[in-house]
Amino acid sequence: MITVEQALEHLFSLVSPLGSETVPLAQASGRVLAADVTATRDQPPFAASAMDGYGVRAAEVAVGAKFKIIGESAAGHGFSGPVGPGEAVRIFTGAPVPEGVDFVLLQEDCDRFVNTITIDSDPGSNANIRPAGNDFAAGFTLNAPRLLSPNDIALLAAMNVPLVQVTRRPDIALISTGDELVMPGDTPGPDQIIVSNTFGLKALFDSAGAKTRILPIAKDHPASIETAFDLAQGADLVITIGGASVGDHDLVSAVAQQLGMQQSFYKVKMRPGKPLMAGRMGDAVMIGLPGNPVSAVVCGNVFVLPVIAALQGFAPAPRTRLSATLTAATPANGPREHYMRGRVDRGQITVFDRQDSSLLTVLSEANALILRPADDPARDVGDLVEYLPL
Amino acid sequence: MITVEQALEHLFSLVSPLGSETVPLAQASGRVLAADVTATRDQPPFAASAMDGYGVRAAEVAVGAKFKIIGESAAGHGFSGPVGPGEAVRIFTGAPVPEGVDFVLLQEDCDRFVNTITIDSDPGSNANIRPAGNDFAAGFTLNAPRLLSPNDIALLAAMNVPLVQVTRRPDIALISTGDELVMPGDTPGPDQIIVSNTFGLKALFDSAGAKTRILPIAKDHPASIETAFDLAQGADLVITIGGASVGDHDLVSAVAQQLGMQQSFYKVKMRPGKPLMAGRMGDAVMIGLPGNPVSAVVCGNVFVLPVIAALQGFAPAPRTRLSATLTAATPANGPREHYMRGRVDRGQITVFDRQDSSLLTVLSEANALILRPADDPARDVGDLVEYLPL
Repeated sequence: MITVEQALEHLFSLVSPLGSETVPLAQASGRVLAADVTATRDQPPFAASAMDGYGVRAAEVAVGAKFKIIGESAAGHGFSGPVGPGEAVRIFTGAPVPEGVDFVLLQEDCDRFVNTITIDSDPGSNANIRPAGNDFAAGFTLNAPRLLSPNDIALLAAMNVPLVQVTRRPDIALISTGDELVMPGDTPGPDQIIVSNTFGLKALFDSAGAKTRILPIAKDHPASIETAFDLAQGADLVITIGGASVGDHDLVSAVAQQLGMQQSFYKVKMRPGKPLMAGRMGDAVMIGLPGNPVSAVVCGNVFVLPVIAALQGFAPAPRTRLSATLTAATPANGPREHYMRGRVDRGQITVFDRQDSSLLTVLSEANALILRPADDPARDVGDLVEYLPL
Repeated sequence: MITVEQALEHLFSLVSPLGSETVPLAQASGRVLAADVTATRDQPPFAASAMDGYGVRAAEVAVGAKFKIIGESAAGHGFSGPVGPGEAVRIFTGAPVPEGVDFVLLQEDCDRFVNTITIDSDPGSNANIRPAGNDFAAGFTLNAPRLLSPNDIALLAAMNVPLVQVTRRPDIALISTGDELVMPGDTPGPDQIIVSNTFGLKALFDSAGAKTRILPIAKDHPASIETAFDLAQGADLVITIGGASVGDHDLVSAVAQQLGMQQSFYKVKMRPGKPLMAGRMGDAVMIGLPGNPVSAVVCGNVFVLPVIAALQGFAPAPRTRLSATLTAATPANGPREHYMRGRVDRGQITVFDRQDSSLLTVLSEANALILRPADDPARDVGDLVEYLPL
C-alpha cells in the first residue's frame, strides 16, 4: 500500500496541462487564465474627480474664498479649457479633472449663488482627485494561471479585454460499474440499488471547472466494460467507479489493462477509499475510484480535484488544508489516514458519529473532511485539527 | 440616511419567492430545492454485506470453525436459498445477505480449501452487515428550501429522484449608465472608460444561482435610460449601476419614477456604497447600485446576494458573517459602517492599505470584506473582527 501523498505524486506524473481556448469575457468566470494579460492603457486614463463638487486651484483653497464657475466637467464630457485663478468648474465623480485644477471642493463645503461659489466649511487637505493610472497603469499584468473570480472579470473588463484565453475545460468521462446498479428513474430489481456516485461526482467536478459526461452503467462483464471505455473516447480523464477492489467480480482493472492501460498503483493507505487505481490509457488518464458512495466522494475530493487543477494549468499540489478546533474528543486513529465526515462552523468542527462509508445522508450534512493522520493519537475537545472543505 | 440593516429590511419587503420548475437531476447542483423530497424506499433496500468475505451464522463463529460453501451472493445477484448450520456463502461488498446469515467473515480471516473455509484469525465482533435502511428508510425527507450540493445530488440519486423541483433562477437585468462608458472591445474616447461593473456583477450573481443579462449601456439621457428599462422587461430584478447619487446628471431615479417605480430608500449609511435606491417597478424589484466599481461590488455582495437567496425561497436574512483575527492594527472607523477590502488566510485577516472605491486591482486580490461597525474604535493586531467572504 502507498500513502495518499505518494498516490498524488503518481497521479501528477500522469497529467500535463491542457491547451487553451478563447472565450467571451462574460463566460470566463470560474475558468483558469491560460496566458498573462497586460493592460495597454492606464485606469483611470486621466486624473478623475473622486467626488461631486467644484474643481479649483489648491493654492486658493481657504474658508471664505470665492470662485467664478466657468464650466462643467461631467463623466464622459470633460471641460476643455484651462481653469485660471479665481475660477472653478462644476465637476462630477469620475469626470476628467481640467487643466489648472488640482483640488475638488465637495459641494457640501460650498455655498453657491448663481455662478459663484464661496467655501463655507473647512474642505480639509484631501484633493479628492484620483490620478491617472491610480488603479492600474499600462503594462500592469494579470498573471496566469489564475482561477478567474467575479472581481477578476470586472478588472479584465476595465483593462478592455473582451476575449480571454483560458485553459480548456477537462473532458471527464464517468463510468459506474456493477450489475446491482440502475439509473435514477428506473425500477430496481430486488437485489439492485440506484447509481448515485456518477451524479454526485459530476456535480463536484463540474463545479471545479470540468465538463463531465455520465456514461451508461457498465455491467460486470468484460464486453460491457469495454463498451463503456469505448464511449469514453476523447476524454482527458476516464473515471471508473466500483470494480477496483480485489473481489472476484472486479473486472475493471483487467479490462483496462487489456485495452493498454499502464497501471500506476492499486491500493492507498487511507480510509475510506483504499482500493484505487490509476494509469494512462492512450491520451487519457484513467482513475479507478472505489464503489462505496462516500469512498468515491472522498477520493474525488482528495485525488481528482487536484488532478483537475493540474489539467487546468496549476502547479500540481494537494488541496489546501484548513484547521479548526474539535467540539468533542475523538478516539485514536488506526494505521491508515482517515478522512472523517463532519461539520465546521466558525472555526469549530464536529466529527459525526456515523462514519460508515455507505452513508449518503451523513455525507450530505457534512461540509468538511477531518484529516486524521495514520496512528494519530486520541484528540481532545479544543484540539486543532486539519480538514478539507467539502 | 438609513442603516444597512434597515435597507435590507426594506429590500426584503419588496421580494417574494419565485415559482419552481423541474430539472433533470444532473442539472440540479447549485439550485435550490423548492419542495420536500421523500424517499419511497429503504437504502440499502436489503441487508447488505459491508465487505468481501463469507456469510455465516454468527452463533457458529469461532477460530477453527469450518463451513461448507454452498453458493455465492454478489452485488446485483443475491443467493436465493437459506443458509443452514455449517454452511457459508461467498459474499461481496454490497451484495444482499441471504436468509440465515447474520455474520460476514472477512476473506483475510479465513483459509479456503476447494469448497471449505476454516476461520484462522479472530474475526472480532463486527458482523460487517449493513441493515436494510441503514442509510435512509422509506419516508426519509430532504427538506426545502435547500441549496443542493454535489453530495445532495448523490443522495437524491440514491433516493431514485430523476427530476428535481427547484426554484426558478432569478432573471436579473443589469443596466450600466453613463456617457463615459463603452463596452470591452470598443475604443474609448479621451474622456471615456470601459464598463466593468456589469461583467463582474453578472459573474457574482450567476454564481449565486441567477441568470443575469447584461443590457446595453444607458447614456445620460432620459430616452436612453427608458430604452434600457424597456429591454429589462420580464426580469425579476432590474439592477442599474451608476446614476444613483445626487449629481445633476443622475437621471436614473427620475426616469424610474416616471415609469412607475415606487422608491423605497435612497441613501445608506455605509462605506463604500452610500447612494442606493430600491423599489418595485411593475412585477420587478429595482435596485440602483452606485457606480464606483468597488461600491457596486460591495453593494452586490451585501444587498443583492441576500435578495437572490430570498427570491430562491430562503427566509430573508443578511449574509452570514465569519470572523478572523487582525494581522495588523487598524484605525477607528467613522460614523458609517465600513466594508474594508482584505485577505483572509487560515483565520488571519489583513486589511489592505488602499481602500479607495475605484480600485479593481485591490479588489481582485481581496477575498474578504472586513466589517467595521459605525464608530468602531481602533482595533489592535490579534483582535477578532467580522467579515463577509468574497
